[in-house]
Amino acid sequence: MSEQHDGHLRATYNEIHTLIGKAAERIEKEYAPDLFVAIGGGGFFPARVLRTFLKHPKSKKNISIQAIGLSLYEELPSTSEEQMANEVVRTQWLGPETKTLLGRKVLIVDEVDDSRTTLEYAVRELQKDVEKELLLLPESERDAKRPKFGVFVVHNKLKPKRGTLPADVPYFSGADIPDIWFDYPWEVKDVYEHDRMAELGRKLQAKSA
Amino acid sequence: MSEQHDGHLRATYNEIHTLIGKAAERIEKEYAPDLFVAIGGGGFFPARVLRTFLKHPKSKKNISIQAIGLSLYEELPSTSEEQMANEVVRTQWLGPETKTLLGRKVLIVDEVDDSRTTLEYAVRELQKDVEKELLLLPESERDAKRPKFGVFVVHNKLKPKRGTLPADVPYFSGADIPDIWFDYPWEVKDVYEHDRMAELGRKLQAKSA
Repeated sequence: MSEQHDGHLRATYNEIHTLIGKAAERIEKEYAPDLFVAIGGGGFFPARVLRTFLKHPKSKKNISIQAIGLSLYEELPSTSEEQMANEVVRTQWLGPETKTLLGRKVLIVDEVDDSRTTLEYAVRELQKDVEKELLLLPESERDAKRPKFGVFVVHNKLKPKRGTLPADVPYFSGADIPDIWFDYPWEVKDVYEHDRMAELGRKLQAKSA
Repeated sequence: MSEQHDGHLRATYNEIHTLIGKAAERIEKEYAPDLFVAIGGGGFFPARVLRTFLKHPKSKKNISIQAIGLSLYEELPSTSEEQMANEVVRTQWLGPETKTLLGRKVLIVDEVDDSRTTLEYAVRELQKDVEKELLLLPESERDAKRPKFGVFVVHNKLKPKRGTLPADVPYFSGADIPDIWFDYPWEVKDVYEHDRMAELGRKLQAKSA
C-alpha cells in the first residue's frame, strides 16, 4: 500500500447493497426467514436492504423488522470470560414484541461478525426470553412455536472467534474478509472520498497481486 | 418525460448520505439532539447516517438510537379521522427504554414526511408515555426531565398534511420534494439501474426546464 492509502478495506453503498442481494438468494433457498431482528446501529442498514430482497415466504408481503440495541464494550487484554459476557450492553431489547417471534424463522442481522461476542449474546438471550414465553403455552404447543433462529452478517472477519453460535443456527455472510479494518460508507462523513479510497485500494491491491 | 422514464424521483445512496450530512449541520446548530428515535424500517438508514455526523453535544460520543416500528395502513377514501388515527400500527414500541428519553433532546427520524400521520402519532404517543414516566418522579423534577422532541425526515413532500406536529417541536428535512413518487435506493433490487434512472431523470428534467 502506498502512503496515500491507509490499508483499510472499504466498499461502496452499491457494492454492499448488491452483496446483500446475492446473500438473500442463498438465504431464501436455504432458510427462508419470516422475521428479522436487526442489531442496532450496524444491523439497521443491512436489515432494511434485506427486506427489499426477501419477502415473507407465505404471504409474499414485507417481512417485519424488530430492532434490538447492543453495544460491545472494549475489551482489555486482562478481561476474563465472565467480564466479557457482561460487556455486551443492552441499549434496547424486545418487550412484548418477544411474542412476535413465536413460531417464526427469525433472522438476526448485523453488519460485521468480528469476535462473535455480540451475536452469541443476541442468540442466547433471545432464546432465553422465548423459552419464558413458551412456558405460558400448553406444553403440547411449545415445540411447534419455538422459533428457528438464523444469523446474517454483511461481512464475516476470518479470525478466531470468542463467541460461538449453536450448531443448529444457520449462518450466512455476504462475504468473508481478512482481519483488517473495514470502513462502511455509513460510518464516514465524505462518502465520495470514501468511494475514491475504495477504488484506490482495489487498484493498489491488483498491482501488488 | 420520455417513455424510457417512469417519472419517479430518485436519489443515489451517496446523494442521500450527503443530504443527511448537510441537514446535520443545521440540526446541530439549531437543536443539538442527544438521542435518536428511528421509525423503522424507513428511518433506520437515515438514523444510522445521522449518527456519523452528529455527536453527543456534551460527551462527543456516539448518540444512541432507539427504534420503534410503525406502519401506516392504506387509507381508503372513506376512512374517517378516527379510523385513520387507529391505522398507524405499532410493530415495536419502547418499553423500559422510555426512561432513557427523560431529560433528553430526542430527534425522531424517518425517511419521508408524506401525510405526516406517522410522525404525529410517534410524537404524541412518545409524549404520552414520557408523561407517565414523569409522574413517577418528584413534581419538582418533572419539568427539567421532560424531553424536548424534534423531527428529522430525509424528504418532506410538499402536499397538504393530515397530521400535525406541536408548534414547539423543531422540524428538519433534508429537502422538500414535490408530491410525486420517490424511490429510495434501499427499496430497489438493482441499485445500479436505480442510479442510471436517477441520472436519466435529471437529464430529462434539465432538458424540459
